[in-house]
Amino acid sequence: MTNKDARTPASVQDEKSQEAGKSIGWHKAYVEGSRPDLRVPVRQVHLTNGQSVTLYDTSGPYTDPLVETDVRRGLTPLRENWIVARGDTEEYAGRPVRPEDDGIKHTSPRGGLRNLDAVFPGRPRQPRRSRDGKAVTQLAYARRGEITPEMEFVAIRENVSPEVVREEIAAGRAVLPANVNHPEIEPMIIGKRFLVKVNANIGNSAVTSSIEEEVEKMTWATRWGADTVMDLSTGRNIHTTREWVLRNSPVPIGTVPLYQALEKVDGKAEELTWEIYKDTVIEQAEQGVDYMTVHAGVRLAYVPLTANRKTGIVSRGGSIMAAWCLAHHKESFLYENFEELCEILAAYDVTYSLGDGLRPGSIADANDEAQFAELRTLGELNRIARRFDVQTMIEGPGHVPMHKIKENIDLQQEICDEAPFYTLGPLTTDVAPAYDHITSGIGAAMIAWWGTAMLCYVTPKEHLGLPNRDDVKTGVITYKIAAHAADLAKGHPGAQEWDDALSDARFEFRWEDQFNLALDPDTAREFHDETLPAEPAKTAHFCSMCGPKFCSMKISQDIRREHGSTKNEIEEGMAQKSKEFAAAGNRVYLPIAD
Amino acid sequence: MTNKDARTPASVQDEKSQEAGKSIGWHKAYVEGSRPDLRVPVRQVHLTNGQSVTLYDTSGPYTDPLVETDVRRGLTPLRENWIVARGDTEEYAGRPVRPEDDGIKHTSPRGGLRNLDAVFPGRPRQPRRSRDGKAVTQLAYARRGEITPEMEFVAIRENVSPEVVREEIAAGRAVLPANVNHPEIEPMIIGKRFLVKVNANIGNSAVTSSIEEEVEKMTWATRWGADTVMDLSTGRNIHTTREWVLRNSPVPIGTVPLYQALEKVDGKAEELTWEIYKDTVIEQAEQGVDYMTVHAGVRLAYVPLTANRKTGIVSRGGSIMAAWCLAHHKESFLYENFEELCEILAAYDVTYSLGDGLRPGSIADANDEAQFAELRTLGELNRIARRFDVQTMIEGPGHVPMHKIKENIDLQQEICDEAPFYTLGPLTTDVAPAYDHITSGIGAAMIAWWGTAMLCYVTPKEHLGLPNRDDVKTGVITYKIAAHAADLAKGHPGAQEWDDALSDARFEFRWEDQFNLALDPDTAREFHDETLPAEPAKTAHFCSMCGPKFCSMKISQDIRREHGSTKNEIEEGMAQKSKEFAAAGNRVYLPIAD
Repeated sequence: MTNKDARTPASVQDEKSQEAGKSIGWHKAYVEGSRPDLRVPVRQVHLTNGQSVTLYDTSGPYTDPLVETDVRRGLTPLRENWIVARGDTEEYAGRPVRPEDDGIKHTSPRGGLRNLDAVFPGRPRQPRRSRDGKAVTQLAYARRGEITPEMEFVAIRENVSPEVVREEIAAGRAVLPANVNHPEIEPMIIGKRFLVKVNANIGNSAVTSSIEEEVEKMTWATRWGADTVMDLSTGRNIHTTREWVLRNSPVPIGTVPLYQALEKVDGKAEELTWEIYKDTVIEQAEQGVDYMTVHAGVRLAYVPLTANRKTGIVSRGGSIMAAWCLAHHKESFLYENFEELCEILAAYDVTYSLGDGLRPGSIADANDEAQFAELRTLGELNRIARRFDVQTMIEGPGHVPMHKIKENIDLQQEICDEAPFYTLGPLTTDVAPAYDHITSGIGAAMIAWWGTAMLCYVTPKEHLGLPNRDDVKTGVITYKIAAHAADLAKGHPGAQEWDDALSDARFEFRWEDQFNLALDPDTAREFHDETLPAEPAKTAHFCSMCGPKFCSMKISQDIRREHGSTKNEIEEGMAQKSKEFAAAGNRVYLPIAD
Repeated sequence: MTNKDARTPASVQDEKSQEAGKSIGWHKAYVEGSRPDLRVPVRQVHLTNGQSVTLYDTSGPYTDPLVETDVRRGLTPLRENWIVARGDTEEYAGRPVRPEDDGIKHTSPRGGLRNLDAVFPGRPRQPRRSRDGKAVTQLAYARRGEITPEMEFVAIRENVSPEVVREEIAAGRAVLPANVNHPEIEPMIIGKRFLVKVNANIGNSAVTSSIEEEVEKMTWATRWGADTVMDLSTGRNIHTTREWVLRNSPVPIGTVPLYQALEKVDGKAEELTWEIYKDTVIEQAEQGVDYMTVHAGVRLAYVPLTANRKTGIVSRGGSIMAAWCLAHHKESFLYENFEELCEILAAYDVTYSLGDGLRPGSIADANDEAQFAELRTLGELNRIARRFDVQTMIEGPGHVPMHKIKENIDLQQEICDEAPFYTLGPLTTDVAPAYDHITSGIGAAMIAWWGTAMLCYVTPKEHLGLPNRDDVKTGVITYKIAAHAADLAKGHPGAQEWDDALSDARFEFRWEDQFNLALDPDTAREFHDETLPAEPAKTAHFCSMCGPKFCSMKISQDIRREHGSTKNEIEEGMAQKSKEFAAAGNRVYLPIAD
């Protein structure tokens, strides 16, 4: 989105940065807030006509040539002073890190950490949590009527007033995920009144991937526009990988603690306990995880509702909890201990992402009894979380045909008191494995238009394998399209300025501006060059489709020139202009030899 | 879609074909109609559980190992006997083919045809047209209450009764494009009561491409599911390229005659005349073009309405006509001579595709005065065409944000008496050049759900360059997704059976069946193999995402096994089953060593 009121960032970079930016068509700039340490990053695109366009930027300091980043040092903790200044948190010894946190057991035939010298330098360090009796979450501040620096930061980013941000958080219609132990993030907000956000999943697994690869996937995803990243690692080195990711991430990090807890019991769901789970949540909260998926809505009574489904339970977390319930024939330990969990999350300002463990995994299972039974429970849990000042969003499906999508968002908004909806797609058909970024991009755009606040991306590898670098990029770009299409359809203020700037460039044959304004400048440029590789083609007044001989854009420019710019001028002068046009030789194309 | 009532094709292929089919997971089969020469092709997918699924097939004889195809001979003229037997058409000398038809002039520094020995063997031959006073179009037959073999063919293809097909055509709600000079096609139907169709554009240009490449693009596009192909060639050899494409095409071919007419006047729009245009239409009708885009709705008075647009006129045909109107300050010669044009099209049963020359080329221009003024004229022209028994569909935009899409289809259906709508996307945002198959796939799925009958694909190269082989495939697959998602959302009978079959295969870890049922089996298989290349992985009871250790599908299968298949069984037996589950070792994953 173009940042209407912030076209000239207050804090202009020095010449070095601007020069560096010009060569790639844009440079990193910052809009300063009410205090010098509140600087909101934006992407300033320089057009060849001398104008510039300001776009939302998620890429962090990595795209600022003035900032030296080092994966071994991590990012500067931007928010540290804000957190400390509030005086409501304190450092403490923290839970000791154990080999089991990385899946290493004395009985293990293999062991040890891989790559990057393993443990993050300087860790473990003292984590931070709320002082006794203090309500430290952004929700608590919003309810008390206080605007935090984080709220001001997102207000500038979203081009709204800080008061709007505070109101939306206070009402539970938006969340600002920001663990007090993750001071490195550039704050962002998730709510239907704001720009639609995109989450990208990364994570190693038993099969493949190293720590370095995961850190690199995170920076790669945010470079293309991921607003948050979920680390869904399931293999070894979960704890250490997460530490590296957190210390280097400019965006909020989400996890599913259940995955790590399951590793700690060797994958035996029935051996999971509330204690192991709770310990894992604390471990991750101390590291700085900003939001956690909790499948507390998978209740014992709902498990049989899935028995006659076409594809049963497809959520990994959902199936783990179902297996546990089944094995013990007991109510879910997450549901039973939900209030205690709220207390823990509140202490660190970890945001809930209440998981939809019973989401449909096929078109046939969409909007069924199991799915909506769980949703009603999520509504109940949302109200409990609110009592504890824990920020909460609600996860949604899954596989849903187009005509059943709206019911999902409408019911969720009603049942969950307008808490932000965070959906996976939904996929609108099951028949296109290898293209599920597209089957789901369709559903994602629609459900976001109707009110979903954040979209969890789906890559081309969904159902088939682990996404590589290209898949991550394709997934993010596809979902940025869905999100922006929704911003347009919602009439988000300023959203259309981006489209308008690009369309102006297109109409005026400013090829370099088209590329630089594109969601993916590299691929746009590459595709153009495949057909017309020469440099002059990028300033030519025709495009590669029709060639130089006849171009509709060219004719339109002639029409505009002939007809002036107001309707009156047009109607009065039309006959006259027509004669002039003929006199000028009726040239509607450039006189380039065929 | 699975063909419910035709699961066992009447005409079973011999063993050779079935064997050939098995190795690729499916074989070409035929469903026989009321006469032996009426054989409807289907794709019979063989599953590893012994069942089979029947899918709609557009790929023509090229995928039948029992048929020898030769691009120099062309396809067998399936419909020839049907056309001749009707006795209402006759052969005649036809218009002489001139060098200018291929853009070759005596003054031309270059000349001559390229590749494939140029002129199609045996051409020119005697074309066919209606005998005096005979109404030969499918619309004329439908109105007279007669069911043609073509109608029966599409009824079998669509799994509906022939009477439904006849009714929809008679009412003007569907078209069956089938020029009497294109007997090679396998008939198909375009209308909102039927499966949503996809068109793929091919075409050489001044810049690149040979005849061979264009024929190959056509067979490639139909292999992946294109229901019709438009040949939008603008360079040399237009006539000859089209002849090769037509003689080898199993699907209806569309063109924009204005493009070729413009070539004949050296690209000077103002030198176009009704006579040159008419001659070009006859030239193409004699070759067998099944439908033609005619921009007769771009009237003189509408041209000024585009002057203040952000991106003016982006339709090439629209801008040619606007330039002509501008140069002469006269009403469009297409609009003025529309009735005569109807007479010509009626003689060959060429279907109108009334072009939207003033479609919006950017989000900013969507649903504006120029666009809807033209639409009202298209409604008027549709009624005229109907008087002449000419089948007609209406073209639609373009660039439209999601919240303005429904107005397009609703207005079109109202203004154009429910004539089939044929839209280009629409693109839901302008900011993603290189991904406009996706920006438009979103809009395409939505507008098709709401009633659009055919979608014109958009490739990743849109706005940037000419699509290559990969782009054509990506465009077709993306649009097949949009079309099928819409079929599902419309509740098209049988549409969901395809999704169900694939989801069953997914749930049961039948990897080969998943691949073979996929829209693109090759890419699905390739993606799977990237993560887990070994052959045993394709029969493994886990997928590559979670690895062997913990798989949600596996747990779901356990739940189903534990809980039986009816709700009563489930509720009665739950506690008991739970104990058994525990007794069996609580194994929710396969005992494969980590």
